[in-house]
Amino acid sequence: MVNTKLPIYLASKSPRRRKLLKSIKLNFKTFSVDLAEEVFDAEHPIKTVKRLANEKLKQAEKSINDAIIITADTIVVLDNEIIGKPVSKKNAVEILSRLSGNSHLVYTGYSIKNLVSAKQVTDYAKTKVKFRELSKKEIKDYVDRGSPMDKAGAYGIQDDYGSVFIEKINGCYYNVVGLPLSKVYQSLQEVI
Amino acid sequence: MVNTKLPIYLASKSPRRRKLLKSIKLNFKTFSVDLAEEVFDAEHPIKTVKRLANEKLKQAEKSINDAIIITADTIVVLDNEIIGKPVSKKNAVEILSRLSGNSHLVYTGYSIKNLVSAKQVTDYAKTKVKFRELSKKEIKDYVDRGSPMDKAGAYGIQDDYGSVFIEKINGCYYNVVGLPLSKVYQSLQEVI
Repeated sequence: MVNTKLPIYLASKSPRRRKLLKSIKLNFKTFSVDLAEEVFDAEHPIKTVKRLANEKLKQAEKSINDAIIITADTIVVLDNEIIGKPVSKKNAVEILSRLSGNSHLVYTGYSIKNLVSAKQVTDYAKTKVKFRELSKKEIKDYVDRGSPMDKAGAYGIQDDYGSVFIEKINGCYYNVVGLPLSKVYQSLQEVI
Repeated sequence: MVNTKLPIYLASKSPRRRKLLKSIKLNFKTFSVDLAEEVFDAEHPIKTVKRLANEKLKQAEKSINDAIIITADTIVVLDNEIIGKPVSKKNAVEILSRLSGNSHLVYTGYSIKNLVSAKQVTDYAKTKVKFRELSKKEIKDYVDRGSPMDKAGAYGIQDDYGSVFIEKINGCYYNVVGLPLSKVYQSLQEVI
């Protein structure tokens, strides 16, 4: 599907992003960037995720040559507030209680750069996610399983509980998992 | 998550539905029903999928006792026309060419019955799916791989190509795969 002689690097530690790119049969290597992901309240979420994807790209460029690099950043926004990864189990329960019965937004920004031609695309996708009302027991059970801890918004749409928490979405499903596959695929073709 | 001493039967041949129910850690057995899935142009899609799910349930009830049965039927509707499974590779190309750049609707009807208490839920979910413009080559490559042949609408949202064909959806993602997990999970709790 994607034809290039250049190696492709996914500069992301997220196992979900790796799985998504594997699902479209892409050959790629992974590379970890360490970035203090600073967010500013006054900054619009679209700006935030594109800026963070770009900062990750710049970081990765220092160590990689003659390749295509993909970076991404996903945030969850509820009532204009960015909801990060939970800092504790108690915090995960708080986050899920706030998401319960409400709609929130998921933004993923991504940057793709061909280091040989210097062609670059930085873009984003937005998906609205509606949770059904969750019971306290459902939230407790989910948090006890440990699944929420490494995820923005304290849930995974693709995991066993996450999938039954969500009533409907409006936008790209894979964006909520961590990478808007359809857009990323098209952007990849653009830089090749 | 689902607590019942009754065995649960999924009366469906769809490998995708089996995978979905497994993903929510449900213990179930499968059972195949053979039904001539008749559709009528004058019938509303919601009526069609609920009727077919019900007919499958009645069929399954003849052979199963003291259990909970789940049946489902998924259809794809474009411009008020039900799009079935492709009858040939040529037909699959035609269907995908029609879906390209357009929005269509996916309806799944399902029936869940507790044969001991006779409690039954029959419901449906509807999801709007927007395809991006596909190139002739993309369609040909996808059809040549054989993936479209056993699928209503000639695509699988969860497969490697399907996932990059779809720009956005409005509704339940799993409904497009073949079973609206969140609703089915809640209906299961209702009949238990």
